[in-house]
Amino acid sequence: MTKKLTAAVIGGGVIGGGWAARFLLNGWDVRIFDPDPEAERKIGEVLGNARHALPMLYDYAMPAEGALTFQETVAETVEGADWIQESVPERLDIKHKVYAEIQGACDAAAIIGSSTSGYKPSELQEGAARPGQIMVCHPFNPVYLLPLIEVVATDASDAATVDRACGMLTSVGLYPLRVRKEIDAHIADRFLEAVWREALWLVKDGIATTEEIDNAIRYGFGIRWAQMGLFETYRVAGGEAGMKHFIDQFGPCLKWPWTKLMDVPDLTDELAQMIADQSDAQSGHLTIRQLERKRDGNLIAMMRALKQQGNASGRLLNEHEKTMRPTLEAGTPMLSLRRTIPVDWTDVNGHMNEGRYGQIFSDASEEVMAYVGADDAYIAGGLSYFTVETTTKYLAETHAGEAVEVHSRVTEGKGKKLRCLHEMRRASDGEVMATCDQFMLHVSLETRRTCDPSPQVQKNVERLAALHSEGS
Amino acid sequence: MTKKLTAAVIGGGVIGGGWAARFLLNGWDVRIFDPDPEAERKIGEVLGNARHALPMLYDYAMPAEGALTFQETVAETVEGADWIQESVPERLDIKHKVYAEIQGACDAAAIIGSSTSGYKPSELQEGAARPGQIMVCHPFNPVYLLPLIEVVATDASDAATVDRACGMLTSVGLYPLRVRKEIDAHIADRFLEAVWREALWLVKDGIATTEEIDNAIRYGFGIRWAQMGLFETYRVAGGEAGMKHFIDQFGPCLKWPWTKLMDVPDLTDELAQMIADQSDAQSGHLTIRQLERKRDGNLIAMMRALKQQGNASGRLLNEHEKTMRPTLEAGTPMLSLRRTIPVDWTDVNGHMNEGRYGQIFSDASEEVMAYVGADDAYIAGGLSYFTVETTTKYLAETHAGEAVEVHSRVTEGKGKKLRCLHEMRRASDGEVMATCDQFMLHVSLETRRTCDPSPQVQKNVERLAALHSEGS
Repeated sequence: MTKKLTAAVIGGGVIGGGWAARFLLNGWDVRIFDPDPEAERKIGEVLGNARHALPMLYDYAMPAEGALTFQETVAETVEGADWIQESVPERLDIKHKVYAEIQGACDAAAIIGSSTSGYKPSELQEGAARPGQIMVCHPFNPVYLLPLIEVVATDASDAATVDRACGMLTSVGLYPLRVRKEIDAHIADRFLEAVWREALWLVKDGIATTEEIDNAIRYGFGIRWAQMGLFETYRVAGGEAGMKHFIDQFGPCLKWPWTKLMDVPDLTDELAQMIADQSDAQSGHLTIRQLERKRDGNLIAMMRALKQQGNASGRLLNEHEKTMRPTLEAGTPMLSLRRTIPVDWTDVNGHMNEGRYGQIFSDASEEVMAYVGADDAYIAGGLSYFTVETTTKYLAETHAGEAVEVHSRVTEGKGKKLRCLHEMRRASDGEVMATCDQFMLHVSLETRRTCDPSPQVQKNVERLAALHSEGS
Repeated sequence: MTKKLTAAVIGGGVIGGGWAARFLLNGWDVRIFDPDPEAERKIGEVLGNARHALPMLYDYAMPAEGALTFQETVAETVEGADWIQESVPERLDIKHKVYAEIQGACDAAAIIGSSTSGYKPSELQEGAARPGQIMVCHPFNPVYLLPLIEVVATDASDAATVDRACGMLTSVGLYPLRVRKEIDAHIADRFLEAVWREALWLVKDGIATTEEIDNAIRYGFGIRWAQMGLFETYRVAGGEAGMKHFIDQFGPCLKWPWTKLMDVPDLTDELAQMIADQSDAQSGHLTIRQLERKRDGNLIAMMRALKQQGNASGRLLNEHEKTMRPTLEAGTPMLSLRRTIPVDWTDVNGHMNEGRYGQIFSDASEEVMAYVGADDAYIAGGLSYFTVETTTKYLAETHAGEAVEVHSRVTEGKGKKLRCLHEMRRASDGEVMATCDQFMLHVSLETRRTCDPSPQVQKNVERLAALHSEGS
């Protein structure tokens, strides 16, 4: 058993609360100091969000939560702590005063990280008893979900201490990005500031509203950046001609007067080559074709995730998909579903995970339900069918990219009972890949208990069961 | 049956090929003109990617593909076409020449869209026979997956024609963003250019490498932007104090010398109020708490999607999760899995979809397999167990956020056969929520046929089956 670690969080709010949640949910003990009389409530709200959200990221249970305490003084908070995170207001005089209090009581080996986005570590270290103990550890909201931490140290910092800090951040699921030289606003906020300035111009000049700007970002480059960032995206766009060639093409653009943000570096051959070399080191182990497939796989999986949430580009997919929904015809069996297997449905064995068969048969039964009148409006009205038992036979392997069809028969349809027999076939050759015997009961969504269907649904189910028993 | 539509794609490459794929896979006929002798091969590669990727976005089959032809002249290509998309090189003289050829042969009612990122529509329309027919329709790579199209028209454009163009774009799953006034580089590329210029400084000054910059984007604000963009993200960050208050705080930053990109608008009270009003119109129907939950749901679902792909922030999650994987102990039954139900596992009935029970039991059986020695290394060595039949009973509803445990017994373990009986219980009160009788066969991953397990795995399975039959 490793020693239980303790984090001291100085300054609460959304950022301090996010840090507290990260440590606490990863099993650390957490002590908080925040003079705000509302601190406990505010941090409690962040913790509530975090307890709901962070464990959902993982396919295993997280460690048992550590102990959380609120302290009266900085000294009590930091004494013996392994990590001290400062998230007080962005005023240098306040930060210096807080560091003096912290260093008066904390272990010399403890890490003191600052959440500052505005100050360089050399500024934070000024006048400190042990300047090398203080470093920038700049997080991104929500801290309990996003992994990025910009770690910025100075020549006064001990390299082994910075290494140790990065190891501790990694151990709570964060990604320490070590910034090579200190610079105002570190790295990410420089981009945010550049975009922010451009966005202010666009709103001011009446080119676009805030919503249009958000759409211009999230329906296009935003989702690209979420998985590859800037340079790897351009590497793929550049294609086989290579990164150097692609970068050289940008030269003329930098002279264009298309933005008011105009102080740009000279794109010398040396700079273009430096970028190309760094890009090779980063992504050169994959061909452009492999990078394209990786990019597309990421985009598909993320857009499908947003589709399930019904938000952003996923909302657009749901709208467009309505035009593809077929009208079922009462055959024996009925063709209840046609679809392609997406990349995010395969597992460690290289084929579709058995859970996804369940989803396909569930989707097929939704179509059958809609056919008998238990459609979206019926469900919105408080009635539905719940599956109570399935027996599934997996007869052939199914792979991403394959088109499949489900053929369904209603084999029982009396009162509350609805039983379907589904067959999933490969569309190209009709081979049966799996079957599912699915038994459902009609329920009230209010009481969550069984009840009779509406007379119309009941009649339709009986008619379909009769038709399908004739054909069997 | 609506009339089958025809698109003419003038100029191939990655962008023209992407447009061709969009139309073709949505059932349009597509004619292509591209003088490049390699055009057919190049467009074929883009089409190959698109045919693989685009149908995976949807949970229904897409329409049957239209017919694809390559033409010898612009006139043949555009005659009678409903949509003409120009993606020729970014030189105004070339574009003007192409428009003259197009308008000499196309219907007056056809839409002529240009993929240009560099020219304004008024520049494109100069000297045209029917200037109002030409508009900017600027896509984002990969065009077959990303929905954003910046639509920019001029006073010469007929509003009804632009409306009709937007309707046609929407019908193939694209999102037309109408830019209110023409401006160099439209909207999104102005942001890309601002970030690009800042990135060049960072690389040149040795602050960060291309890979570090990509990580600074994709592990932090990139994934935020993929779902909410810039302003809605800041609205959430601003919290209950409101957007106006939040914007006002930015004022001083704009004076800071932290970037070399320095020509910034004055953040007047009027501009701050305009932004706040637009933000209210955009997101004011949701409280900050609701927006936080929406943001977190999106982030969780996207990060889990990347986790499944093993890329970007999902790769970090997989690494971190290894520290959470428990060592199984041979009890009767075994505690094979503990986890929290994520937000992306629920369905139209407001509870966990039956498919996800299948995934949980599959995950549980993977842990049992690992326990008997059929672990990742064993699978990498070419042997595994495949599930051939499951019977699942759904006993209680399961909701997002609930912690569950799976208890497993090996009920048969002879030769190639492995049978497990799993029980999923709510962690808080031990209630059995579902059971699964899972029958597996040992297979060679090379032949994809059944074969005997290794002697060690066989011995371990038999031992576990004996232990679990004693306890039953």
